[in-house]
Parts: sequence; C-alpha cells; structure tokens
Amino acid sequence: MSNNSPIGFLDSGVGGLTVVKEAMKQLPNETVYYVGDTLRCPYGPRPVEQIKQFTWEMTQYLLKKNVKMIVFACNTATAVALEDIKKTLRIPVVGVINPGARAALKLTNNNKIGVIGTVGTINSGEYVNAIHKKSPKTDVYGVACPKFVPIVESKEYESVIAESVVNEALATFNGKNVDTLVMGCTHYPLLKPLIKKEMGEHVQLIDSGAEAVSEVSMLLDYYNIAADAIDEEKQHEFFMTGSKKMFEDISLDWLNLESISVNKIMLP
Amino acid sequence: MSNNSPIGFLDSGVGGLTVVKEAMKQLPNETVYYVGDTLRCPYGPRPVEQIKQFTWEMTQYLLKKNVKMIVFACNTATAVALEDIKKTLRIPVVGVINPGARAALKLTNNNKIGVIGTVGTINSGEYVNAIHKKSPKTDVYGVACPKFVPIVESKEYESVIAESVVNEALATFNGKNVDTLVMGCTHYPLLKPLIKKEMGEHVQLIDSGAEAVSEVSMLLDYYNIAADAIDEEKQHEFFMTGSKKMFEDISLDWLNLESISVNKIMLP
Repeated sequence: MSNNSPIGFLDSGVGGLTVVKEAMKQLPNETVYYVGDTLRCPYGPRPVEQIKQFTWEMTQYLLKKNVKMIVFACNTATAVALEDIKKTLRIPVVGVINPGARAALKLTNNNKIGVIGTVGTINSGEYVNAIHKKSPKTDVYGVACPKFVPIVESKEYESVIAESVVNEALATFNGKNVDTLVMGCTHYPLLKPLIKKEMGEHVQLIDSGAEAVSEVSMLLDYYNIAADAIDEEKQHEFFMTGSKKMFEDISLDWLNLESISVNKIMLP
Repeated sequence: MSNNSPIGFLDSGVGGLTVVKEAMKQLPNETVYYVGDTLRCPYGPRPVEQIKQFTWEMTQYLLKKNVKMIVFACNTATAVALEDIKKTLRIPVVGVINPGARAALKLTNNNKIGVIGTVGTINSGEYVNAIHKKSPKTDVYGVACPKFVPIVESKEYESVIAESVVNEALATFNGKNVDTLVMGCTHYPLLKPLIKKEMGEHVQLIDSGAEAVSEVSMLLDYYNIAADAIDEEKQHEFFMTGSKKMFEDISLDWLNLESISVNKIMLP
C-alpha cells in the first residue's frame, strides 16, 4: 500500500521551513504542501481564540488540497489548537511539542530540561505537561523569547542585534544547570549557532520540528501511507498570505532550493 | 485519559533488555512485562515458520497478561513475524526495524548505511526494504553476524574472543565508507564498545531497540494511553523459558536493577 498525496505543513510564517528541510532529507519521496501565514505572523503574542481561528483556516486550506497528513510545524499552533483540531479530522495530525518533549527525555542525563518558545507556547505550559506526563520528576524551565521570531522573519538571524537578543534571553538559564534545551519554536533553528554559542557545547539542543519529522516518518509506516519512489521532480507547493519575495529569499537561503513554487493566497 | 496496564516486550533471549533499559529511562511511569525465550534462543538461524510460531506463542502469553501494547524487542521476530501478527491484534504493536531504519535516514550524511543483524534478519531484507521505501537512492550494506548473539547470551561480551569475533565480522565494511551503522539486533548494544572501536569514531551507531522506544513513547501520546505517575515502585515482571540465574546476572549487570521479579515459564 502507498499514498502519493502530499503532506501538509502549516506555520505562522517561515519557521516551518526548518521542518520541511528535515522532511525533504528524511523523506525524499514525499511531496510537501506548505501554508505560511506570513501576513499575520507572529502568532506568539496573539489571544488564544485568534490563534485557534487562524490555525483552523490554514487546516481547512490544506484539507481542500487533499493532503494525507497535516503537520503543525508551529509550536504556538500546536500548543493552542492541536488537540481540538485533531479530534475533528480523519487524517493523522502531527504537532511539534510531543516530539520535542520525547527527544528531550531521551537525551537528558541530569533530568534538567530547558524550553524556549513564544509567549503563547510557554504560557500554555504544554511542554511542561508533555514532559511531566512521561517523567514527573524531571525539572523543566520554560523561557519565553518574544523577540526571536521577529528577528528571523526580518532575516536578521545572523546580525549583531540577534546575538545580543539571544544572549539576553538565554541568560535566564544561568545557574539552572540544564543539559538539554528544546528549541520550542520552529523559527529558532535559524538562530541555532547563536543559541549554541550562548548555552555552551555541553548543552544538547533539540529541534522540535526535526523531531516531528520522525513522528511523520513513523506514522507513514504505521498507516502504510508512504509515497512511492518516483523519478520525476517532486512538485512541492508553498502558499503564503504575505510577501512572496521574503519567503523566497529565506527558503533559498535555508532550503537551498533553487526554484520553488510560491503562491500568494488569502485566508480564510 | 490514561492506561496503567503494562507494556509487553518479547525477545528470543536477553537482548530485549537493551530496549527495556531505554524504556525505563524514557518512560519511568510505565510497567514492563518481558518474555524472553532463552530456552530456544538464538532465533536467527531457525526456519522462518518456526520463528513465526515461537513469536506467536510469546505474543499470546503477553496478551493473557492484559498488556496495552506489545514491543517486538527482537529484530529477527520483527523481520519475520511482525506484519502478520500486527494484523490480528487490536492493541498497538511496535517492531524494531522501522525505527532503526528511520533513525539511520535521519543521521546519515553520505547516504551509505551499514546494517548488522542475525542471519534471519539480514536474509529477510527488511532493513533494505524499510530504508529504500523512504529513500531509494541510499546504499545499504547488510552483514549477518551469527556469532554475536551466542557471545552475549553466554555473558562473554567483554572477552578477548568477543573482540576478535567482532573485528572479523565488521571487516566486511572496509572500504564501504558507511557513516552510519544500525545495530539490527537487540543483543548487539552489549557489544557496542567493541563495535565502536572497530568501526571508528566517525561512524554513528544506531541502537534499533532504543529507537523503538521513541515509537512506543509516540504511540502512548498518539493513543492517549500513557500511564499515570504513581509513587509506588513499579512491579516489572520478567518471564523466561530458560535459566533464571543467567537472566538475573545479565539484567543486574545491564539494567542495574537490584532485585527483579523473574519467573520461569513454559511456552506454549
């Protein structure tokens, strides 16, 4: 059995591309359809009901494209909207928080885990819940980093400003002795070199989005819905509510895709 | 929702303990029931129909104990019997081959993957199938290592003989340039220091059993059947068809469990 329909990815902006990059590496047979709500990004500081509404609109958009699975490539959307939406859909839905939490429990040796994310993600407490559900005695320190997403979306992720913003935010972990840090926002891997530098070599960084791809890969096996190997070029499609240009620049820089099909769309 | 029933593990012998060790680390709330067919171990060289029959007997034994999930903590049983048995059961069944294959695709950079396993596992071609299903252009080199399981089961895994047996078997990989090696038998992690030494630091070793625990962890989330956190000591239970003494020695050495409940059983 197999299923050559695309896998749908949704994100508030460009962060989900870090998930797509990993999906293209691990699952080269699969076709990617991606919706990025760049017009209304960032989601992190928005009210919960609004995040739910926007996420629902992206989900509907992907369902109309006949995707076989949907990946919430956005921690904020996962924290706020995944459970409700998952219940209403017949296809598998994957978030990024449980995979990030599982990977942290796998890697930590001292049971002290740090989590960085948007205000929405950290305030939801979903990482703490996910980790404590499996391992109640593990210490989890969550820190909201509201300045990180705007830096990435404005393509300043290698700037001097970025470095000082990262250093200031992560100073909160001084003395906490975490040995594992979950990058609980799919935008953050673009800041990974700066985060690594500030946290030090002894701290293992977890890319929640990359971990989610392991779950996608597992569900393809579990439901027997992996795509067949075909020789033709995959027709990946990217749908953006905001500027195509900005998205094309970042995807070229980040995905090394020479030409991608980016479509401007309206939601809802 | 939660479910405090035990998770069942089955293996031809003691190798599955490497999976249990990882499960106890990542999933401290869960209770482990383990069946090891130490009397009829090794399975690797046996005819396919016999492996299917023995695996079915272990599965039945665990089902009668009301486990909520079954883990084939044995590559040979996974290669030969998983698909058939999975179809007949209503609870989730996890094997070790797909998780090992997925982890290899995640870690490899040069798309050259080595796999070592029993004759049964390597001859089944299931690792090659699992990897090529996802990534057809990846090179996979499988090598059967029939002497490894007897060395582990006889507790000689740190001996001089073990070192020469490992070196001889892995010499097959000379010139193959693999950057990732799947230990495609749950007994092999007990030989990991020797395997690492022979393959070199640049080759990443994958423990198929440890990777399977990630799948278990994921399915607990997916079906909402993780156990609650309870303060009392977990009542793990181990059921052996062969010598209790040998099993107790290895589990003490490997799991660092001071006292475990080992029961001698008859199959079928």
